[in-house]
Amino acid sequence: MSKLDLSLYGILDPKRCLGRALDELADAAISGGCTLLQLRDKESSTREMLACAKSIKTAIRGRVPFLINDRVDVALACGADGVHIGQDDMPMAAARQLLGADATIGLSIKTRQDAMQFPREGLDYVCIGGVFETQSKDNPVSIGIDGWTELAALCRGRMSTPFPVGAIAGIDHKGASDLIRAGADGVALISAIFMQADVKASAMKFKKVIQEAQSS
Amino acid sequence: MSKLDLSLYGILDPKRCLGRALDELADAAISGGCTLLQLRDKESSTREMLACAKSIKTAIRGRVPFLINDRVDVALACGADGVHIGQDDMPMAAARQLLGADATIGLSIKTRQDAMQFPREGLDYVCIGGVFETQSKDNPVSIGIDGWTELAALCRGRMSTPFPVGAIAGIDHKGASDLIRAGADGVALISAIFMQADVKASAMKFKKVIQEAQSS
Repeated sequence: MSKLDLSLYGILDPKRCLGRALDELADAAISGGCTLLQLRDKESSTREMLACAKSIKTAIRGRVPFLINDRVDVALACGADGVHIGQDDMPMAAARQLLGADATIGLSIKTRQDAMQFPREGLDYVCIGGVFETQSKDNPVSIGIDGWTELAALCRGRMSTPFPVGAIAGIDHKGASDLIRAGADGVALISAIFMQADVKASAMKFKKVIQEAQSS
Repeated sequence: MSKLDLSLYGILDPKRCLGRALDELADAAISGGCTLLQLRDKESSTREMLACAKSIKTAIRGRVPFLINDRVDVALACGADGVHIGQDDMPMAAARQLLGADATIGLSIKTRQDAMQFPREGLDYVCIGGVFETQSKDNPVSIGIDGWTELAALCRGRMSTPFPVGAIAGIDHKGASDLIRAGADGVALISAIFMQADVKASAMKFKKVIQEAQSS
């Protein structure tokens, strides 16, 4: 598996892709600079989701890590690199036990309570949000850059080693730049890449914005 | 794990239990003679479903096998004896690979096509339905006793050894008796047991009906 790099994290969702094939979008996103991909699918049957996950896994050709949202069974069956779990998904320790020590496991953090209580053992990264308003998911509140910064400090303060912390929800170019300057290791994007006509070009533009913010 | 016996197969569903705790209903059902239990939950979060599965597994105390509908990850994480999969769930071979040789895997059969095409390797039983009309699930057609008999013959004809074949959907006392006399190894029940005020008594009544039909 390639090294974990949260910087340009693309989340593939069959409901947020303008009806296009997710394996082709995955390839385009990697060509445009995505460093990590996740399949999130809360509606399809297990059979449909697994078939889709396998096609994405094939299209990725090992260039970036591939994670599955929530579904450890789908991750195991398609040979994904790990899972991204939310607060309502399988508990971290159970996911780690099923996936093994080498898998990548990331966790969503939405509140101060989440940030104070997440299990530190065996976790590879957290992704904090919703930072801004989004149409991709119901988020009760948007925490903004200040909220992200506060939660990121709480998360990192609980870890003994440098720890990757990403940001998610409603992130545009300015948001990405601001978050990277505020210390985010990366931004997770759905609509901003996959609801665009040219997925590769959209990823490339974010890549440029992120690289500029990282070197500033 | 106790031996697989389809005869009185109880399916626990959090939406079909009159709001009661499924672990207590599992215990009552076993006291009444249920020989096999399944948790089917298409709506809860993974975390809720796993917690529920664990509580049922504990309540069962190894007296009967415990299967999980669809979710191989939940089955693995709660230590269930296997899974029951439908035509839209994980393919049989993938489920077997994840669960191992000792797990029990059952499959839903609804149509002639299902009966002609299911993978024979590694399958422990099939359950054919919907036999009668039911409110527990959307079934496009009810196949009746004759339809069940036809599909059961197709399924058994494809297997080289005696093969357990159950029946599901809308089965009442007369239906259970007729199906057992028609050669069913058992009946799968949801509402007829778990939507009743006295779960144990409901299971006992079915047990009696089934035993009478088996010995007739």
